[in-house]
Amino acid sequence: MKSYRKELWFQTPTRRQLVNITPQVAQCLAESGITEGLLLCNAMHITASVFINDDEPGLHNDFEKWLEKLAPEKPYNQYRHNGYEDNADAHLKRSVMGREVIVAVSGGKLDFGPWEQIFYGEFDGKRRKRVLVKIIGE
Amino acid sequence: MKSYRKELWFQTPTRRQLVNITPQVAQCLAESGITEGLLLCNAMHITASVFINDDEPGLHNDFEKWLEKLAPEKPYNQYRHNGYEDNADAHLKRSVMGREVIVAVSGGKLDFGPWEQIFYGEFDGKRRKRVLVKIIGE
Amino acid sequence: MKSYRKELWFQTPTRRQLVNITPQVAQCLAESGITEGLLLCNAMHITASVFINDDEPGLHNDFEKWLEKLAPEKPYNQYRHNGYEDNADAHLKRSVMGREVIVAVSGGKLDFGPWEQIFYGEFDGKRRKRVLVKIIGE
Repeated sequence: MKSYRKELWFQTPTRRQLVNITPQVAQCLAESGITEGLLLCNAMHITASVFINDDEPGLHNDFEKWLEKLAPEKPYNQYRHNGYEDNADAHLKRSVMGREVIVAVSGGKLDFGPWEQIFYGEFDGKRRKRVLVKIIGE
Repeated sequence: MKSYRKELWFQTPTRRQLVNITPQVAQCLAESGITEGLLLCNAMHITASVFINDDEPGLHNDFEKWLEKLAPEKPYNQYRHNGYEDNADAHLKRSVMGREVIVAVSGGKLDFGPWEQIFYGEFDGKRRKRVLVKIIGE
Repeated sequence: MKSYRKELWFQTPTRRQLVNITPQVAQCLAESGITEGLLLCNAMHITASVFINDDEPGLHNDFEKWLEKLAPEKPYNQYRHNGYEDNADAHLKRSVMGREVIVAVSGGKLDFGPWEQIFYGEFDGKRRKRVLVKIIGE
């Protein structure tokens, strides 16, 4: 069994942002030399997500509006977590969108359907944060 | 290490439907000959889910009503994604329910608790769509 | 390839409770002797979650309030599942929070970011329920 590990670093200019990280993850897979196995990609921070969806700007706008409806950023004092922090909403938004994805590796490729793309979902940005890529297989 | 891959195809007669796919997934596991490992089952389309819950029709009705409350299908023009499309709500519903499940394989079986069943959650149906089953182990 | 399996049992005194199970999961990893691989930790019951977030009491209070807003426990008769049961809300809450986490195993450790902790999320407690830990690797 082979295994591979890499950290990807991100610093978004805004509090919330969706970043298509499919090229970086595919690069990790190429570096690993693994052709059959499973790839884990997870946010290492608890106010960010890794998820799979469509790379379509209209939809990303819909996600922003929808997540703000489900778990609004403000007023900050609606959340008990917001004493020294102001990011309780980011913990909740990340819970909706998920921490991680597992992608099948088949024939040396990310084994994806027609529109699947991997996103880093930042909900409390403007600072350096990490995503972990771990691959096991042969 | 052994690996196994199969696509399962579905075409639901209605826009939204929950389909118990546990028998098909168990059949994949039997075909694979793998007795210890991990099984990934994921929707290959970004308007559908694979998730684990109870096979109880009352609950499925509750899911339908609840997801429509969290991310209503209509009016279509509430979503920017709905220019040429009308399925923005399906992208959001799938985000709540999740893209994939990972199931432990132990002693050649899906290692499940008493009521766990795997469902394909279709939120934009009436066309042929796929689920991926990937198993690695020994 | 090595594999390891263990069930962890919980009985919470209240209907809903978040339990930090990171020490028990780390103990499983130590017992397994696996140093590179993937660890699956999942609720074996469909009214409970395993998820990763922050061990901060204010945030846990925010989760409780937020999940009650998204999927209220009462009135019980708002849900069709609640004939002989009263736990439909627990099935919905668990869908938001997720069934499982996959954690990378690197250098014999849970490969975590700075604040990641694993929680058992009980939404229909006061009875004995199980979490599965399955680890594969080398």
